[in-house]
Amino acid sequence: MPSTVVNPGLEGVVVGETVLSNVEGQIGRLTYRGYDIHDLASNVGFEEVVHLLFYGALPAQAELEALHRSLAAQGALPESTLAILRAIPRDAWPMDVLRTAISSLSHVLPNDPTGAHASGVDAAFPLVAKTSTIVAAWDRLRRGLDPIAPRPDLKHAANFLYMRTGEEPTPEQERALDTYFVLLADHSFNASTFAARVVASTNADLYCAVTAAVATLTGQLHGGAPSGVMDTLEAIVEPDRAEGYVRDLLARGKRVMGIGHREYKIRDPRAQHLDAEAKELAQQVDSRWYELAVALEQASNKVLQEAKPDRKLYANVDFYTAPLLADLGLPKDEFTCVFACSRVAGWSAHVLEQYSHNRLIRPQATYVGPQIHALEPLAQRAASNGQATLRRSSRARDSSSG
Amino acid sequence: MPSTVVNPGLEGVVVGETVLSNVEGQIGRLTYRGYDIHDLASNVGFEEVVHLLFYGALPAQAELEALHRSLAAQGALPESTLAILRAIPRDAWPMDVLRTAISSLSHVLPNDPTGAHASGVDAAFPLVAKTSTIVAAWDRLRRGLDPIAPRPDLKHAANFLYMRTGEEPTPEQERALDTYFVLLADHSFNASTFAARVVASTNADLYCAVTAAVATLTGQLHGGAPSGVMDTLEAIVEPDRAEGYVRDLLARGKRVMGIGHREYKIRDPRAQHLDAEAKELAQQVDSRWYELAVALEQASNKVLQEAKPDRKLYANVDFYTAPLLADLGLPKDEFTCVFACSRVAGWSAHVLEQYSHNRLIRPQATYVGPQIHALEPLAQRAASNGQATLRRSSRARDSSSG
Repeated sequence: MPSTVVNPGLEGVVVGETVLSNVEGQIGRLTYRGYDIHDLASNVGFEEVVHLLFYGALPAQAELEALHRSLAAQGALPESTLAILRAIPRDAWPMDVLRTAISSLSHVLPNDPTGAHASGVDAAFPLVAKTSTIVAAWDRLRRGLDPIAPRPDLKHAANFLYMRTGEEPTPEQERALDTYFVLLADHSFNASTFAARVVASTNADLYCAVTAAVATLTGQLHGGAPSGVMDTLEAIVEPDRAEGYVRDLLARGKRVMGIGHREYKIRDPRAQHLDAEAKELAQQVDSRWYELAVALEQASNKVLQEAKPDRKLYANVDFYTAPLLADLGLPKDEFTCVFACSRVAGWSAHVLEQYSHNRLIRPQATYVGPQIHALEPLAQRAASNGQATLRRSSRARDSSSG
Repeated sequence: MPSTVVNPGLEGVVVGETVLSNVEGQIGRLTYRGYDIHDLASNVGFEEVVHLLFYGALPAQAELEALHRSLAAQGALPESTLAILRAIPRDAWPMDVLRTAISSLSHVLPNDPTGAHASGVDAAFPLVAKTSTIVAAWDRLRRGLDPIAPRPDLKHAANFLYMRTGEEPTPEQERALDTYFVLLADHSFNASTFAARVVASTNADLYCAVTAAVATLTGQLHGGAPSGVMDTLEAIVEPDRAEGYVRDLLARGKRVMGIGHREYKIRDPRAQHLDAEAKELAQQVDSRWYELAVALEQASNKVLQEAKPDRKLYANVDFYTAPLLADLGLPKDEFTCVFACSRVAGWSAHVLEQYSHNRLIRPQATYVGPQIHALEPLAQRAASNGQATLRRSSRARDSSSG
């Protein structure tokens, strides 16, 4: 018998087991497959993390070299996806474009209703590679420039930057983006990853699942925070205005974007690495975004400590993402797309994990609408005047599912 | 504290309340907003059901007339979506095409990161209208024909058939499809509807949510059954071979497609209406699909009653969908798209309901991977030989979420 307790956020409900990543919020620890994110951020590149997530082990030397070559080769887009990108109006929002383009990758696959052609590691590597190519291609097309194909001698992060500008990035730029890609690759069952697993649980293929994940990441409650941090940095203008800005926000009952996390009760373990990379990058490009971000974090810590001493609100992963991506030359409406370029690794690994011991994910609903009643003939109906009724009725309360 | 009980299918977990539809499987009753599906199937058209789901009341005469006009007008596709459809290879799978094209509808909307432009009833009606136009347009493009725009004087179901062929359907054809659209419009929290609500719970817009729902419906465990029924009818060839075919299926441990339902323990209340419509249509077009379906249902009832007397396995909604859609001239690889043309009404209504009292849907995972361990330097790593490891480790078991 179904429970009648309604749990609208599924908080505390354990929907699955995973071997991929572990978030220990109280101690601020994040691990992928048992490796601490601090070790990974300092020692390995994105390709190694992709291999780790998909295969359960870091690649040996020969595997890593093969992976560098194959990812660049697999990053090329099918002609039909390029044609679709060219057909999209230039003012379309980059996340909407990414969702459409990832969906379109399936059109050139063999027509196989079982989805077997697109449900394995053989599909997941090309999808990781192509996601970055799509984001870079759209960045150029919306500026009236032709897309650039990935270069076989460049690693994944360097290739993304190269495909945007046509120039090889500096070692600092490459390392900053590579570190970002490593840090963002997976984070257990977040909303987009869960959506991908729900889709995969019907045996829909990898492209279906990742398209849904991109759709989910679009939401302001999930992937939209770094551009919100950027809005804040732009509004502050000068470091010494940060504290006043934060006090004003709190007085209006608002929160500081990029501060606080549902899981982490100390500083997000990813923040320190993004902080360090953003700092180095800022020196190179002579930008003020990092300086403004530091002032904003310090002001937030001070004001929030006074105002909400019981809450543990520290910089999260989104916070130093903003100056880092801005100093890589990325416009803020592409920030969430760059997040997707990394997280597509985690989404794909979770989809493969879902397939490996699948069960259709289908929870239940409690019906709280009108009780059964007779149908009024057309001539006797009152006009509803375009008013939507979506609140519960006091008349009925039954458990149901479909 | 999170529970440590893992519930991989969320069975029995109540994730939300709904006023939209109620499935009472034990007594075989389905209601939309308190109206019995039998009353709706016999007395109202799809437009009235859309109005009912979105507004909570059946439309008055003037509202219904306005809705007929506006749905036809809103069904026209933006030029960019038509250009995208033309860019897709003709052998692409129709459900993949529908997902890409629905995603592309957002590209012409104002660039509004809050999604407010695409999260209300004003977006939902055009989305319902355009879904049918996309399916009909792709049906023509893949046959090398130009798409046809919706005609303002035709109702929704008639327009779909007209946009495929360029000819007005017969009254029987129109009524058969309209009845199908009424019956399939909503079914509480099925997998695709739940996916749409997960996406919407991040405040992603209606296009994101419905794109994810289309992605989910693609799965063989969800929307793929009617084409499986069609495969069976094609394999049987003659009615008197149905019983042998069913006995052979059972002997090989397989199930009969379109027979049995997770919820309904008596015959699916929608089946009788599809049965009646398919019967009438078969007489008109002189087809044998209906006759074969009847023979298959009778054979299934007989053989399953003998083999599994304790199981209650009856024809579900997918069963008579197969002869009905086939006799409307639809190829079986478009059946799931036609399902989407109806269910887009329910998806949209559920998304609006989710927005109306939203809470981010984010369950937890239990981490069962390796315990934390040191990172091996590159030179010391063993080759993994492309073997994916996605099973639980015996070493760790922590609760986690992200």
